[in-house]
Amino acid sequence: MKPKILLIGGGGHCHSVIDVIELEDKYEIEGIIDIKENIGKKVLGYEVIGCDDDLEALFKSYKNAVITVGQLKSNMLRVKLFTTLKNIGFNLPIIVSPLAYVSKHAFVDEATVVMHHALINANAKVGKNCIINTKVLIEHDAIVEDNCHISTASVINGGVVVKENTFFGSNATSKQYIEIDGFIKAGSLVK
Amino acid sequence: MKPKILLIGGGGHCHSVIDVIELEDKYEIEGIIDIKENIGKKVLGYEVIGCDDDLEALFKSYKNAVITVGQLKSNMLRVKLFTTLKNIGFNLPIIVSPLAYVSKHAFVDEATVVMHHALINANAKVGKNCIINTKVLIEHDAIVEDNCHISTASVINGGVVVKENTFFGSNATSKQYIEIDGFIKAGSLVK
Amino acid sequence: MKPKILLIGGGGHCHSVIDVIELEDKYEIEGIIDIKENIGKKVLGYEVIGCDDDLEALFKSYKNAVITVGQLKSNMLRVKLFTTLKNIGFNLPIIVSPLAYVSKHAFVDEATVVMHHALINANAKVGKNCIINTKVLIEHDAIVEDNCHISTASVINGGVVVKENTFFGSNATSKQYIEIDGFIKAGSLVK
Repeated sequence: MKPKILLIGGGGHCHSVIDVIELEDKYEIEGIIDIKENIGKKVLGYEVIGCDDDLEALFKSYKNAVITVGQLKSNMLRVKLFTTLKNIGFNLPIIVSPLAYVSKHAFVDEATVVMHHALINANAKVGKNCIINTKVLIEHDAIVEDNCHISTASVINGGVVVKENTFFGSNATSKQYIEIDGFIKAGSLVK
Repeated sequence: MKPKILLIGGGGHCHSVIDVIELEDKYEIEGIIDIKENIGKKVLGYEVIGCDDDLEALFKSYKNAVITVGQLKSNMLRVKLFTTLKNIGFNLPIIVSPLAYVSKHAFVDEATVVMHHALINANAKVGKNCIINTKVLIEHDAIVEDNCHISTASVINGGVVVKENTFFGSNATSKQYIEIDGFIKAGSLVK
Repeated sequence: MKPKILLIGGGGHCHSVIDVIELEDKYEIEGIIDIKENIGKKVLGYEVIGCDDDLEALFKSYKNAVITVGQLKSNMLRVKLFTTLKNIGFNLPIIVSPLAYVSKHAFVDEATVVMHHALINANAKVGKNCIINTKVLIEHDAIVEDNCHISTASVINGGVVVKENTFFGSNATSKQYIEIDGFIKAGSLVK
């Protein structure tokens, strides 16, 4: 029997993560945690079974959780949830799509999700609580620090360091061996 | 024995579609329909066996067809062919590369081709007679209406609505949850 | 037993190529050739066993080599190494990631590496000593001449001709059926 997992956040990013978890086939999705008003509603067939206030009680039955709220303008909610869930005692496993590729020479830390068609190349390191979104490329020797969202189809080239809390926009590109920090617009080139 | 299929249009896009059909291994390519001057010529080993005027006669022997003319400045020819083929009675199946990924939570309508390395994510919907070209990303909850060409390596982000007849250029990027309509240049960012 | 291969150049690009060779599982990496100062050091676990001056002596034991120096501003070193290695008599095999896709209707010439998630589509031709880097798309009917670096996640569209010695920057995009020559900046659109 697969271990059960709770999904924290029931919006659009949650849809993508459900698809990854189903395909990975490693955890059974027990339900979604969202705002109180949504309890009882369904997200791609999974029920919203509680809100943030219920997390301590739910921990008695379920030990695994994944943060499925997105990160666009701010990652504050994701960071707060990470602390809350860790304090309660939840295990926040790495979720990796079987359609992604993570080099055996790379390292990915807890609570990070690696979405479909993403690629983390040799000698790269990705920190905690990051979204490595669909079709992202993290090239050789790059470092992505904690709490970053590397958005869809963007390219972190070789040796780049992405500082913590960075949002790197969809289809943006970085030059090699530079440092990146803050909010990077979709489609931009960072030199 | 695999069902036979006719390819309507023998240009560059046809080369890519042949590659997808061969790899999908679901249909046997019977031949190509192109302009009268090209009858007897070969396209990647498949013979041009007729022109548009022959479609009614060919329908007696072949029931499946895929539109393999491309769409750059206009989709008029693709739309016209779709109507013609449907009126004759042809079955216009969805063609999906085995190297693409279509979420089981996504929907793709008839006569649409999903090329190599394309990805259609959870809860997305793609209409009829579209080209979802090589390496395209259609993210969660996006809607692509009928007769669109989503060009190579472009990114339709979460919740976007692409109105019918849109050309979305190669490696272009859309912001999330916006509406897109008309002709979008290659490499551009649509906000 | 797998044939042995030498890697010429121990920098960042070498890390990516090691990952590809390990996954391809066709050659056993015997060691790295780098500058004299690095002899004895390790690159992802493989020892630097010599420098350029040792190549003739090493050829007595090893017949296969792959050029693993990168190409950013100039490809001069890669071109010089290609000539040196060929003159000595080395076999410079094509290296293709099992995560890449090369159409059976495409052609790739010697000493070229095709990295993870790259795609070379139907009727395309790639010359000698090229880097087709991670997540690159070479579309149908395109021609990439000798000694080019098609950088990460970039898009060479249908029917394009990339002249020899071209550097095509990361995530850059070309229009269809044009000629490309020289140094193309990352993220740019070539019309």
